[in-house]
This record gives sequence, C-alpha cells and structure tokens, in this order.
Amino acid sequence: MHPSFYFMNLGDKIMYRTLSKEELLTLQSDLQKEYGHYQEKGLKLNISRGKPSNEQIDLAMGILDALDSKYDKFITADGDYRNYGMWDGIPEAKELFSDLLEVPASQIFIGNNSSLNLMFDVISCAYTHGLCGNTPWCKEENVKFLCPAPGYDRHFGITEFFGFELITIPMLPTGPDLDLVEQYVNNDPTVKGIWCVPKYSNPTGVTYSDETVRRFAALHPAAPDFRIMWDNAYCVHDLTDTPDVLLNLYDECCKNGTEDLLFMFASTSKISFPGGGISALAASNNNMKSLRKYFSVMTIGPDKLNQLRHVLYFKDFGGVKAMMQKQRAVIEPKFKLCDEKLNQNLNGLGIAEWSKPNGGYFISLDVLEGTAKNVFDLCRDAGVVLTDAGATFPYGKDPKDRNIRLAPTYSSLKELDTAMDLLCVCVKLAAVNKLLEG
Amino acid sequence: MHPSFYFMNLGDKIMYRTLSKEELLTLQSDLQKEYGHYQEKGLKLNISRGKPSNEQIDLAMGILDALDSKYDKFITADGDYRNYGMWDGIPEAKELFSDLLEVPASQIFIGNNSSLNLMFDVISCAYTHGLCGNTPWCKEENVKFLCPAPGYDRHFGITEFFGFELITIPMLPTGPDLDLVEQYVNNDPTVKGIWCVPKYSNPTGVTYSDETVRRFAALHPAAPDFRIMWDNAYCVHDLTDTPDVLLNLYDECCKNGTEDLLFMFASTSKISFPGGGISALAASNNNMKSLRKYFSVMTIGPDKLNQLRHVLYFKDFGGVKAMMQKQRAVIEPKFKLCDEKLNQNLNGLGIAEWSKPNGGYFISLDVLEGTAKNVFDLCRDAGVVLTDAGATFPYGKDPKDRNIRLAPTYSSLKELDTAMDLLCVCVKLAAVNKLLEG
Repeated sequence: MHPSFYFMNLGDKIMYRTLSKEELLTLQSDLQKEYGHYQEKGLKLNISRGKPSNEQIDLAMGILDALDSKYDKFITADGDYRNYGMWDGIPEAKELFSDLLEVPASQIFIGNNSSLNLMFDVISCAYTHGLCGNTPWCKEENVKFLCPAPGYDRHFGITEFFGFELITIPMLPTGPDLDLVEQYVNNDPTVKGIWCVPKYSNPTGVTYSDETVRRFAALHPAAPDFRIMWDNAYCVHDLTDTPDVLLNLYDECCKNGTEDLLFMFASTSKISFPGGGISALAASNNNMKSLRKYFSVMTIGPDKLNQLRHVLYFKDFGGVKAMMQKQRAVIEPKFKLCDEKLNQNLNGLGIAEWSKPNGGYFISLDVLEGTAKNVFDLCRDAGVVLTDAGATFPYGKDPKDRNIRLAPTYSSLKELDTAMDLLCVCVKLAAVNKLLEG
Repeated sequence: MHPSFYFMNLGDKIMYRTLSKEELLTLQSDLQKEYGHYQEKGLKLNISRGKPSNEQIDLAMGILDALDSKYDKFITADGDYRNYGMWDGIPEAKELFSDLLEVPASQIFIGNNSSLNLMFDVISCAYTHGLCGNTPWCKEENVKFLCPAPGYDRHFGITEFFGFELITIPMLPTGPDLDLVEQYVNNDPTVKGIWCVPKYSNPTGVTYSDETVRRFAALHPAAPDFRIMWDNAYCVHDLTDTPDVLLNLYDECCKNGTEDLLFMFASTSKISFPGGGISALAASNNNMKSLRKYFSVMTIGPDKLNQLRHVLYFKDFGGVKAMMQKQRAVIEPKFKLCDEKLNQNLNGLGIAEWSKPNGGYFISLDVLEGTAKNVFDLCRDAGVVLTDAGATFPYGKDPKDRNIRLAPTYSSLKELDTAMDLLCVCVKLAAVNKLLEG
C-alpha cells in the first residue's frame, strides 16, 4: 500500500563518486557549456509553489454558476444562509466535509477559504486563551513543536511566528519517526504539538502507515494540551489507480479515548478555487467547546453563501471525486514527465534520489549533500525558480542542504520539460563542483 | 449637522413622578391588565439584533448573478483572481472601499466577510506580536481599553476576551467624552486603545462632531502603541435626506502626522449579505507593515472571487449609494414607526428618552433608572426579545440599569407595531413598579 519512499537510482550509469579528478573536470566543462546554453534562452519559469494550473482551475468554473438569484431555499430551519448566524457553517457543507475527513458532521466546523487560517486560529487560541482550560501557551516559559521534515514551510512558519522551539523529526517511508515522536511527546510537557500532512505528505508524498496512525492515537502526552495538527490537505488528491489509503486517525483516537489530541483540517483550495474555496476543521467536543468560545468572539461567522455554492455544485462526495478524476488527468502527465526526466538524466549517478508519489502536489528531490542551495542558485540564474532550498525544514535550514521540493502542477508540460532539463543539468553541475571541492 | 442626541419628552402629559401613591397603584393595576392581554397573545418577536430583514437582503440578490463562468478577465497583471496570491485583496475592491472609507486605496486591505474578524485580528496581532515593534500586549502587566458607552457589545467582548480592563467613557451628543479620553490616553501608558463607531453610533445614533474627530487626531498618547479602532460600520447607512456628515479622521491624522494611531474598518454586511459580504481595513504604512507580516503567516489570502463578485455588481461607489437608497426605503418606515410609538406612549411621562438617528441600525432608549432589566424581563415574558439589558456597556453592566437598544430592521412593520406597543407598556409598568418601591 505504501510505495517505497525514495526510488533508489543505482542503475548502470557511472557513479559520479567513482570518477577521477580529470574526468570530473571534463564533465564540469561539458555541463557548464550545457548550462550556458540554458542561460542564453532567457527562461522565466517557476516550479516553486503548489499552485493549480489555469487548466485545473478552469475545470471548476461551473461552481460560479451553481448559485444565482433564482435559488429560493436560503431559509431553512437553521436560519437564512444570507444573513448573520451559524458560526460553524451550514449543515450541507458539514456533510460534505464529513465524507472528505471521515469524521461525523457533528464534529465539523466550516471556515472561509483558507484552512491555513483555521490552523493559525487554533494555534493562536491555544497561545492566547489555552485549550480546554489549560494554561495559555503565551504564559508558558517554553513551548516546543514537532516538525516532521522535509515538511510544509507554512506550517513551520506559524509556530515559528509564535516563538515556539521547532524540533525536526525525520520523515521515514512510514511517516514521521514515531520512536522519536513518542520519546518527545510522552516525556516532555513543553512539547505541545506536531504538524502532520498524513496523506501524500508535502513534499515527500509519503502516506502515513497504519502503524504510524495507530501510534499517534496511542500517544500519552506529558502535556495535557498536546495537539496533533492533522492537515489532510491532499485527502482526495490521488494520481494513480492504486491510491494510498490512510487509516482514519479520528476513529483510532476514539477507540483509545484520545480524540482530544486531534485537530483535522481540509479545504477545497486544490479542488475548487485556491482564491475562493471553503475549508473545514474537525475536532472533539472538548476542543470544539474551546473553539466555539473563541470563534464566537472573533467573527460574525463564515461566508455561508460560498459554502452553499460549493455544496450545490458538488452535490456530494461523488461530485468531489469526479472533479479529482478530471484534475488527475491534467496533473498526472506532469508528474510522469518529471519522473521520466529525473530517471533519464540522474538515474544511476549516485547524486540524487526522489519520490514517486501516488498523489498530492510535490516531488521531493534529494540531491548530493551540500548542493541544494547551489542547485537553487544555478536554476534561478538561468531563469527557473525553485522552492527555496531549505524551505522544507524548520527555520528554513536543511541541515544536509540536499532537499528540493518540486511543484509540477502550475507549469505547462512544455515549460516543465524545459525546467526539468535545466534542473537536471544544475543537479549534475552542482554535484561535480562539490566533488571537485572535496 | 448633529441633531440633538436625545429627543427630550417634556410634553403636556402627566409626569409619573408627580403622581401620588394611590394614583400610581391605579395606574399599575391598569398597566398590569394591559400587559396581561399581551401575554395571552403568545407573541414570538425579536428586536434584539441589528440584522437586515429578508426584504433588505432580497435587494442584493443580483450580486449572485454578477460573476459566472462566462466571465473571462480573471487573469490580470496582479495575478489570477481564482488562484493563490494577493494577500491584501484585489485592486478593484480596494478602490471601492477607498470611496467608502475616504482613504487612499493604497492603505486598504480587503478581508473576508467579517470586519469584526479584522478587528479581532488587529487586537490579536497587538496582543501576541505587538504593533510596529512595540511590546506584545500579552507581555504587559495591565492593558486598558476605552469603551464609549452605550456602545457595541461585540467590540467590548473582544477586549474583555483578551483580559483587558474596560473603561467606560460616557457618550455625549458629540461623541465620546473627549475630555476624559484625553485625560486617559495622554497620561496613562497602559491605555492601549478605544473602540469607536463614529457615524450613527451603535446604539445611540450619534455621529461624532468635527471637534471630536479633530481632538482624536490630536491625541498625544502616553502609550506608543495606543490605537483608535474606528469601526465605520454605518458609513453609508443614511435614513434621511439630511444625513450626518463625518469629518475624515484619516485626513485629520495625516495633517497631524498621527496616522499610526488609526485603524479603520467597514464591511458590506449591511449593504450586500451579512452571511456573504466582504470587509475592509485601512491603516497607515507602519501599521500595514505589522499586519502584512501577521496576515502573510496567518492565511493564504482572502476570498478574491467574492470581492470580484461585489465589484462587478456595484461597479463603483454610485452603485453602493443606489443600493443604500433602496435599503432606506425599507428601513426608514420602521424607524419612523418606532419613534411614533415612543412619542405616542411615552412622551411627556418623564420616564423615557430616546434617540432619533439620521441613520444606522438602532434606537437607543433610556428608561427610568433601575428599570431596564425589568423592562427586558417583562418583554421576554410576553414573547418579545430585546437586546440584553446592560449589553451596551462594558462587562454587560449598565451602571444605571436604564439603557435599552432597539433594533427595528429585522421585524416586519406589523411585528414592530405590536412589539413597540408591548415595549411601551413594559416601560411604563416597570417605571410605576420602581416608583412604588421608592
């Protein structure tokens, strides 16, 4: 079910490490010439952020027609969807996200367009007011947060912004290193939470194994207000006929009576519109009580008309899945192209490994240790913007300077073709430079 | 320009205070009978919250048709409005709110549907991270916030939620008592802000005088991070042909170089849809810098498609003003009815005073000191829900127990007719009860 984390490239090509100094110098000269040709092209490409392409967004345009002035069922037993009220969203939207998150609708809160904003709100609530009657984190001497890395920079960014100490947890093919997580969480009361993208993780593409999920549900945190920030951003973002299946952490927590450990998140940013979607949060009754207090002071409630618009368009979970099939048709060839390029150009050289995910938005590329920043610079200077080297680690610092996050979705196939060719040249050139240094 | 704050009711009727005990007992008996008739009716009415009526909301339905899948100008020099990006909103929406708030578009940030959420975010940002490099308020021993009262309960609620000390500032016919405001702000460094609804204030209907606005702009706060929370919620919500005119605080501040004192807010909640509008914030460059940092960590950006929908519908400020004329046609008769009822039933009795605003959403009714809670209870027990007595004061405690906020917009004229009749009976009965006690 869980594919090998990194496709190891030990083919029949010559490993760079076996080359003599003279051979490396010749190779360097050839690569520099090749790189020079790219520089002359005046490229302007960007594969840095996980953004849907225009072609993907065009697929969702029908949402804009799903709600118009002819609609006449705004007023229900719950109130008028056009007016104030319903702090936690409309029932139909809760039902929809109940299917996406596999959590009862009663545990779901619907937010505006940004699930990141919901995550920020949870952290901010814990910081200023405390969760479930616990001490606000702003009153604690020291707050630590676990950051599985490589991971999502904007997750790490929130907890860095609040001044927490970020602790790197290595990502394994099964998810975060749970031995280390348990050691921290079950013993250190200053460890207050962990960031997780459990399915098609950003950027590794790893889906957490069943055992990993079960061990999360079985945590016995030293801190009474330790929380798992379970960002299921790619819950329906499959790219193959044999998609990964993620065990349901909410169910596992309920079995253990640990559901207060958990906040779950999802959004339609990469299903409908990044600039006009809806988001959701799932939480236990106790956590919901804390949030209800917070949200009822914070806002008059979310935009209910956009929730209605989405529900009218998708109708049910089947509608979402149908949309994701169409999205897959656009995205899958881009992931295939990237993988082909990496295989053609880097396989067997012993200077790169990369993920081959069954879904999500990213390919994680590990280059020769100590060369990621150089690869980034070389690409940039030839007109291709990559995600900042180091961005996938806490504080933006990759201790081994080797991870690069590739985001294939936004560019066209043609642009991607060029960008990947250049990238491979840069990976090789940076490796040769590094080997010559050593 | 600024009408008398309270219409004094010293007509030709008998003042209750001049009645003998026997006369009061007879009156009490008559009023109790009258009240009993209302109790028998089994009323279920609510004039508690400032909500637009369905009839008002129906006026805005065209907004739902303003943006559909045929629209083809999503992609501009600023980016694709459907995709990620543009943390501070689309330029067209900034232009629109530039006219509403009378502040350059460059100083405007567009939020989602709740301006209350923007106010919360500003307070939360100041609390957790500090504004413009100042100490976060969560690290301060003591934070005080000035609350002109009667005022808006949800404003006071935010600052109470963060544990600040709320200080009541009396509302005068010219706005908050600036003598007192200056005394606090210019001398006490723990005074960090003040809540203001400067036009058609909630609930008094007062529009701040030019002198009041100028004195706000000329404050010399002891605290470097003192801020005026200028919630211009009713900036275009006129109900007469001679609307109040509010002096522009932003301009006045710029003249004095004090523009960092100021955050301004507005929304379309009572222009388009309370459950699906857009909101805005205006701030100086220094304040915007603090917010930019905060918002760029907090969110992937606001819903830009709803901004576009609003702009396409309203086109420009003229479109907003035309909408408000239509809204006025629905609302004005309700305010007139309330005033007539109050005049007919309470004028000259010396037990009530009330506001006669030129706009906004509320009538402020002051009943005999010590009877507001009783009026609330009597109304509730006969099936009419009023805003909680005390809600218009910090901590929900009206020191004189006399202020009642009436919200005429949501009910139909017929419902309002009945509710106001009952209210007047309750005001009289509570007054007689009180006078008999004393």
